[in-house]
Amino acid sequence: MIPSFVYGSWHTAEDTAPNAVPVVDAFTGEEIARISSAGVDFQKVVDYGRTVGQKSLGELTIHERALKLKELANYLTEHKGELYELSYATGATKRDSWIDIDGGIGTMFTYSSKGRRELPNANVILDGPTEVLSKDGSFLGTHIYTRLPGVAVQINAFNFPVWGMLEKFAPAFIAGVPTIVKPATPTGYLAVRCVEIMLDSGILPEGSLQIISGSAGDLLSRLDYRDHVAFTGSASTALKLEQASLSTGVRFSAEADSLNAAILGLDVDEESPEYQAYIRALFGEISAKAGQKCTAIRRAIVPAPLVDKVIASLSEMIEKKVVLGDPRDEKTTMGPLASPEQFEEVSKAVASLIDAGAVAHHPNIAQVEGVFAPVILTASEKMHDVEAFGPVLSVVGYETTSEAIELAQRGKGSLVATVCTHDPELASEFAMGIAAHHGRLHYLDREDAKTSTGHGSPLPHLIHGGPGRAGGGEELGGIRGVKHLMQRTAIQGTPTHLTAITGVWHRGAPTNTDGHPFRKDLAHLKLGDQLRSELRKVTLEEILEFAKKTGDTFYAHTDEEAATANPFFPRRVAHGYLLVSWAAGLFVEPAPGPVLANYGLENLRFITPVTYDDSIRVELTAKKITPRVTDEYGEVVWDTVIYNQNDEIVATYDVLTLVEKVEKTYV
Amino acid sequence: MIPSFVYGSWHTAEDTAPNAVPVVDAFTGEEIARISSAGVDFQKVVDYGRTVGQKSLGELTIHERALKLKELANYLTEHKGELYELSYATGATKRDSWIDIDGGIGTMFTYSSKGRRELPNANVILDGPTEVLSKDGSFLGTHIYTRLPGVAVQINAFNFPVWGMLEKFAPAFIAGVPTIVKPATPTGYLAVRCVEIMLDSGILPEGSLQIISGSAGDLLSRLDYRDHVAFTGSASTALKLEQASLSTGVRFSAEADSLNAAILGLDVDEESPEYQAYIRALFGEISAKAGQKCTAIRRAIVPAPLVDKVIASLSEMIEKKVVLGDPRDEKTTMGPLASPEQFEEVSKAVASLIDAGAVAHHPNIAQVEGVFAPVILTASEKMHDVEAFGPVLSVVGYETTSEAIELAQRGKGSLVATVCTHDPELASEFAMGIAAHHGRLHYLDREDAKTSTGHGSPLPHLIHGGPGRAGGGEELGGIRGVKHLMQRTAIQGTPTHLTAITGVWHRGAPTNTDGHPFRKDLAHLKLGDQLRSELRKVTLEEILEFAKKTGDTFYAHTDEEAATANPFFPRRVAHGYLLVSWAAGLFVEPAPGPVLANYGLENLRFITPVTYDDSIRVELTAKKITPRVTDEYGEVVWDTVIYNQNDEIVATYDVLTLVEKVEKTYV
Repeated sequence: MIPSFVYGSWHTAEDTAPNAVPVVDAFTGEEIARISSAGVDFQKVVDYGRTVGQKSLGELTIHERALKLKELANYLTEHKGELYELSYATGATKRDSWIDIDGGIGTMFTYSSKGRRELPNANVILDGPTEVLSKDGSFLGTHIYTRLPGVAVQINAFNFPVWGMLEKFAPAFIAGVPTIVKPATPTGYLAVRCVEIMLDSGILPEGSLQIISGSAGDLLSRLDYRDHVAFTGSASTALKLEQASLSTGVRFSAEADSLNAAILGLDVDEESPEYQAYIRALFGEISAKAGQKCTAIRRAIVPAPLVDKVIASLSEMIEKKVVLGDPRDEKTTMGPLASPEQFEEVSKAVASLIDAGAVAHHPNIAQVEGVFAPVILTASEKMHDVEAFGPVLSVVGYETTSEAIELAQRGKGSLVATVCTHDPELASEFAMGIAAHHGRLHYLDREDAKTSTGHGSPLPHLIHGGPGRAGGGEELGGIRGVKHLMQRTAIQGTPTHLTAITGVWHRGAPTNTDGHPFRKDLAHLKLGDQLRSELRKVTLEEILEFAKKTGDTFYAHTDEEAATANPFFPRRVAHGYLLVSWAAGLFVEPAPGPVLANYGLENLRFITPVTYDDSIRVELTAKKITPRVTDEYGEVVWDTVIYNQNDEIVATYDVLTLVEKVEKTYV
Repeated sequence: MIPSFVYGSWHTAEDTAPNAVPVVDAFTGEEIARISSAGVDFQKVVDYGRTVGQKSLGELTIHERALKLKELANYLTEHKGELYELSYATGATKRDSWIDIDGGIGTMFTYSSKGRRELPNANVILDGPTEVLSKDGSFLGTHIYTRLPGVAVQINAFNFPVWGMLEKFAPAFIAGVPTIVKPATPTGYLAVRCVEIMLDSGILPEGSLQIISGSAGDLLSRLDYRDHVAFTGSASTALKLEQASLSTGVRFSAEADSLNAAILGLDVDEESPEYQAYIRALFGEISAKAGQKCTAIRRAIVPAPLVDKVIASLSEMIEKKVVLGDPRDEKTTMGPLASPEQFEEVSKAVASLIDAGAVAHHPNIAQVEGVFAPVILTASEKMHDVEAFGPVLSVVGYETTSEAIELAQRGKGSLVATVCTHDPELASEFAMGIAAHHGRLHYLDREDAKTSTGHGSPLPHLIHGGPGRAGGGEELGGIRGVKHLMQRTAIQGTPTHLTAITGVWHRGAPTNTDGHPFRKDLAHLKLGDQLRSELRKVTLEEILEFAKKTGDTFYAHTDEEAATANPFFPRRVAHGYLLVSWAAGLFVEPAPGPVLANYGLENLRFITPVTYDDSIRVELTAKKITPRVTDEYGEVVWDTVIYNQNDEIVATYDVLTLVEKVEKTYV
């Protein structure tokens, strides 16, 4: 009996549980386990996440959680052998399991690294720039993200028990929201084993991960607006679940299989390198995981004269490369569908397409009892509506690009489409025609045929999901995926309020000019620590010399008449880069100290030109302090404003520096 | 009979239309019109938007649409007198109408300006940075927004017939999605008059705006995933509509009334300036629009010892300032509720709160038949569930901050809460406790009491909406509101593909080094136009001289031993700003030409340090070209890379310039 891990311990249903479901090996058909959630107290599961899970995750910062994610991924890597062993029973070949297991672990690594590189080491994420809402700057507005105060329920599909779980868990974990996993019954044992390993690692904060084996019972009805449900599976189940949970106000995100298209552009003929790339893409999608991918290509949309040729080329490649059989056998390149039920489902779908007029091409390969062999179909009306979730695709011809666009749109919303063209204008035309109907567009040509990660592979960096039939949800997409587990809130108040809430100093909030801020390490530096320089006179001689020495002899700096004629300058002016260099001269501390380097600069805007005989001064204020969890230093962003002698703003920018946590002496 | 404007012309229902509803003056009770959508062909409305509206809006760029929005706002400003006249009939005083009419027009101005300042002059919006997905840079990923390919159906509430319409129309118009307005029956005539003025202006592209007077019939069932529905109104209606439209896949966003709280911090006592600010906030929200605002304060959460005092102070202010009566009368400060039905609804809600144990305080003011007078209630259990949509609020006391947080959360999701405190730590504690339960938090203290735009005023810059009871939707928020009308799509492909699709040059895409790009005006400049400089030798002498001249004598540039000890530098290195200055010297064209100014710089990162005896060169490439619609120049962003003699990247950044559309000669 597959157990559940709930409210801090393993729970196994009684052997006599009436709703226990047998789980079988996808190839041998033997029963390998039974699964039931009988006896699980779903309210307790939710409460445990909302209290214990929220508390333990909330005690960590985003960077601390991100680091734990890396540790977990490392631990899983060490123990992945067991998962690969177990995975054969799902019908997956070793290569299929690589997508699932290493793909899942890789997603954790990416989220760990993005969490630390792209998010603050805190629990509040700023969204967008500050809006100044009053003339005197005393009333500001900004937006923040804070984590949802509930749980993340993740209902996964049978085809990727590991990846499907980890790609949802990773962003929720970074956000700080406790996860409750409900894996699909036929392959849930693999997810449970993965959770077991993660628990064994001792890295998971208490309550951050629970898993329910078997039915989720009335779990969803116990959720509300504080919680998030992410569902992967069929569109009909998604709709049923969303209908049922609508009145609770829960945030619901669905990712459903869709009728993904691969379009071959009119610029491509049989001789083009794109043609081979296209056939390989079709082959990859029909064969990997026996076509059981929500992103797999179901509809090949090709120039009409190429329809027969495409079917023949694809058949040929299948005949050359596909060996059906037991996934444990190393020679096997395509295993069985995940369950007898799936075999039946796919057979039915193919039959209905044939009924609708499609002609089936069966590549000539050795058949194996119980293993579904690849089928290529010609076009039929139903190809835009009926999905065969296996090694099946339909090929349809078109005459004009707008016809191809229309055919792609007939999928009524898809996860992904491949557009295979070497013509940039055609690429753009397709984007304008079909982007809004898709979650992802994959462009393929001779230049990326070798480096492309493929039509069917969702990447943690890019969003996964799509409108319409694809469920209307959005997952992954790097930090975008984290934000789906958070609430965006507008914050209005004084600079002091906003500084306290966001952890980012806002102009107008209190400052402290006691001591040079570059002499303070991160143990001493505080937001608002500020340096105000003296005025420095600007002379024409210096401007001209800078022009000569740097070679930047632009007329605005060197030619009085031309400079005066320019609509933006009063007469010859100082170079912007000279002003910035002088500003550095005004704020820098020459001797070694905790500030290690200036590694960059952001948002530089030149506001008021500076001409000779003007003076400038600079104000430099600690704006954002991000100690790294894994290094002995961190990033400090300095709000920098250059003023002229009339206190007009000359330039504003952020100076980016690396500063030691505790000052060391290198010399 | 109030007409509808559908498929390009005005449609008026027959006088005998069986479903015609009478519309009455809120104060006099006289019938002023009848309203019915009988005879409107809803499928034709949707089709017209999807075809004619999509086409005419798609022929314009974002900036062109944004400019039209400004022209429309100007035209409405000229004609707003009529709207103010008509608005009295809704029960609104002149001041109330100002929120509605000028508030609505102001939203258009803000969107016009934000659209042109923050979005590209194109129809594709980039989202986030490019992800390099292959080591050789031949396969990239990015995200774009393109407009929804359907219609934006906007179902508005009765309380703000003009603002409610324009705040939804403006972002949809910028996005390029045709709008179908369904105003609330009791006050829809004002929205219809506003549409009439907009149509009269001749500025609206064909099919970009339709309005349905009366029932929307089965309009929603004709929508699908290509369309967007934005609803403002009661939570129960929102739920009903969303349930009904769930299976169509339409994007549904609801903004519902909620039990918004105003919290007085424990740091505040009667003598604090915050106390007065708080009472004024309560007063403003109970009196403006007779409390008929979805954002109005319904729950005052105050330190227990202050409950009686707060009720007394608020009563006093109401007694001093509120004059009930005919909104046409200049002395009137509070008009009637919008309809007799509303009067009944609010009376019932107050009765149920009193039944639940609340004690009602009725400020002592002159009563007027048919005008609902303000009521202040003491706490009751139901105050967290029952909303009286009128001049009514409940006051509840608390002992500890965490108790106040819990009370605020009991609203189960709100549009906005005010937190009145002068203590930054308390401000932050409240944010962590309640931000995720709110769409907006408004912080009030002595420093922004005068400049705050108020608890109840949604601003176009900040998001409006909230989780849970507030509907779970999000509107406004500047450009965020535009993006809700667009689909986000991940794009994978070569740099050439991405350049063609996004209109932003991507490193690796073709370049053209024919002629200095700074000599080309916008009529001639193309993405990828590039300058590659020669190598320039770096000497220690120059570094030391720059240090001396600018004053930037940081040890990494001047002290060999200390520089070598620093973990990031090999020995003494050139200043980052010196490298950037030299780079400018390498790419600048001295003589007057189409490039008018370098107004800023973005994303500067120093990658490889440059030490003496190294050499540097620069590559400058036209990355993004944004001609302004209202000026004779536009912005050009230049991708800039500094390399060393080994072709290692020294620094990368974007140079921001203003370039003439057609070169002029100023000298």
